Amino acid sequence: MNQASRMASIRPFYVMEILARAQQLQAQGRDIIHMEVGEPDFPTPPQVLEAAAAALAKDGLGYTPAAGLPELRRTIAGHYANRHGLDLDPRRIFVTPGASGALQMVLSLLVEPGAGVALADPGYPCYPNLVRWLGGVPQWLAVREATDFNLSAGLLASCWDTTMAGCIFASPANPTGSIIPPAVLKELIEFSADRDVFVVSDEIYHGLEYEGRAHSALEYSDEVFVINSFSKYFGMTGWRLGWAVVPEHAIDGAERLAQNLFISAPTPSQRAALAAFQPETLQELEVRRQTFAVRREVLCAGLTRLGFVIRARPQGAFYVYVDASRLTHDTQRFALDLLEQAGVAITPGRDFGIHQPERYLRFCYTASVERIGEALDRLERFTRLGA
Amino acid sequence: MNQASRMASIRPFYVMEILARAQQLQAQGRDIIHMEVGEPDFPTPPQVLEAAAAALAKDGLGYTPAAGLPELRRTIAGHYANRHGLDLDPRRIFVTPGASGALQMVLSLLVEPGAGVALADPGYPCYPNLVRWLGGVPQWLAVREATDFNLSAGLLASCWDTTMAGCIFASPANPTGSIIPPAVLKELIEFSADRDVFVVSDEIYHGLEYEGRAHSALEYSDEVFVINSFSKYFGMTGWRLGWAVVPEHAIDGAERLAQNLFISAPTPSQRAALAAFQPETLQELEVRRQTFAVRREVLCAGLTRLGFVIRARPQGAFYVYVDASRLTHDTQRFALDLLEQAGVAITPGRDFGIHQPERYLRFCYTASVERIGEALDRLERFTRLGA
Repeated sequence: MNQASRMASIRPFYVMEILARAQQLQAQGRDIIHMEVGEPDFPTPPQVLEAAAAALAKDGLGYTPAAGLPELRRTIAGHYANRHGLDLDPRRIFVTPGASGALQMVLSLLVEPGAGVALADPGYPCYPNLVRWLGGVPQWLAVREATDFNLSAGLLASCWDTTMAGCIFASPANPTGSIIPPAVLKELIEFSADRDVFVVSDEIYHGLEYEGRAHSALEYSDEVFVINSFSKYFGMTGWRLGWAVVPEHAIDGAERLAQNLFISAPTPSQRAALAAFQPETLQELEVRRQTFAVRREVLCAGLTRLGFVIRARPQGAFYVYVDASRLTHDTQRFALDLLEQAGVAITPGRDFGIHQPERYLRFCYTASVERIGEALDRLERFTRLGA
Repeated sequence: MNQASRMASIRPFYVMEILARAQQLQAQGRDIIHMEVGEPDFPTPPQVLEAAAAALAKDGLGYTPAAGLPELRRTIAGHYANRHGLDLDPRRIFVTPGASGALQMVLSLLVEPGAGVALADPGYPCYPNLVRWLGGVPQWLAVREATDFNLSAGLLASCWDTTMAGCIFASPANPTGSIIPPAVLKELIEFSADRDVFVVSDEIYHGLEYEGRAHSALEYSDEVFVINSFSKYFGMTGWRLGWAVVPEHAIDGAERLAQNLFISAPTPSQRAALAAFQPETLQELEVRRQTFAVRREVLCAGLTRLGFVIRARPQGAFYVYVDASRLTHDTQRFALDLLEQAGVAITPGRDFGIHQPERYLRFCYTASVERIGEALDRLERFTRLGA
């Protein structure tokens, strides 16, 4: 009995190897500084926990409608009104099991077997995996300083042929933290509209912005597909709750997929998330954002001092992506050695693309300023020994 | 911009039309008896709620490993030891976002585009939808009294050709409540092993058994793929938590899929589910099982008295599937009229297959004995008026 052929093209997350070894070392009593996993170190906001506790005390934890609790869809629509001045029909909003579920649903709607899908390299490893899982063909486009490490209409035009069906991008981006400037975002959407191809805008790091402001693709078009999540900005990773905004004409297909793929998103998480947009929660999240902003400064300055080159200016999310080629020619080895010898866990570039990944490393600033300082000290000793 | 071609083959659940209309009527003040949705009417067991509340009070609601909390996987392995006398390696157990997630993951591993997959007709509508979503070809096999409304090795042999890649079956089954006898189950698994094709055994109604006992496919082979869930027997539908048991050789592929499709299953649900196998919880669930057993008697007797013919003897789950051809030749119309005129919501056969669905209706006994009695009274008045 053979596995389906799609399995050959679905890669593991290499960071998991780092994480597993880090946990092993920790179990042996070693002090490990975790800067490898894209998960905020803050707990669930207290208001969200209270809403969850209140939901447990009442009945009503059965299935919700496939697209989500109507009041949560309305609340999310309200968020777009407040944050982006948009008037969205809640029927276009689908609450999903994480952004993972939203991506699955949206890509199932859009990706025809054999079709090309443009992706930024470096980028989030699930995009190419999910595209291949559906029989599509990822087209990695190496992003560089010239485009602020983002896709652009010019880059798309450079690779475009009749097999191309659309593009996926994230802003702020993983692993670079880049934010697509409004004019570039507008051009990307216009390029796609001209060619009648799809746009999937992954906005899961929205809210975690330290320079400039991340715009929603929905500000420029009602035809784009938007992915978002309660995981990152709202600090609810383990609750597995995200959402997709789809164009009017895709509502019926999204509904059928949601029924068959999920039945519905987790109800306790949905009830908890109703508190995510309350003013007190948003105040708490603003304090966290400011904390991230300080960490970013400390980490960027420290890494630069140690000889890492920050080619992608991190304006959002909680990542710094560095060119480590002055210090190593094999970042996979570097990351493993750093973990073994210095107890600092980071992610090698290999997880994020195929264009010179061995030059790059991703650091998450999901640790306190004190721990980031300690990590920088350990890095300094480690690189001095290696030199 | 076109939708991917797979969308043309993914059908909605027709029961949703009934449910939506039932909710509309309810909003207008009508008293509706819900016997249409496959969801127990019991709340989450109190021990599970307590475990969830305790989890909220502690930190630790971030992502879990992709395959689930190690202690939950061990606890599930313990359940197989206690219930089936099996010694399962917890590494083979993947905790998923509902049985929906488990089915997605397992079918992604197994279903090659173009491959045939044998299914019982009538059966759960997600099976053919998910098979088609992955490019496979559902082969509906009409099950009849001769095989207790279950697939059998003989039935498989009757349709077998070189395009066939495997089969999916459920025991107890939806919509019939049939339980596959051990000898038939063993033969099914031997037939599949002989031809080196896959077996997916959906065991989500395990525990809800009123006659005989449902055996796990794992009692006969370590090569089968088993789907299970906390939704039905454990009364945790909205928590979206299920699991898959995969053969040793499929662990790596399942791990990669879980990472990419889910990241992980919801953490509050996983922590809550740790209490699902406690003796006090199981005692509570046994009381509920006995309640279901009484309802089954009342409903079967009442429906038979009214002229419905129960061709599939319901031995488990919480469904009665009846031949209504003495009363109507169009069960879709019958179900809609019954709802409008008598306020009883049930599911027409159309959701469950293509072999004479217009003869059949599914009743869920997810309402109290009193409400079932009231539904039978309303049915009697409705059918008398119709005659």
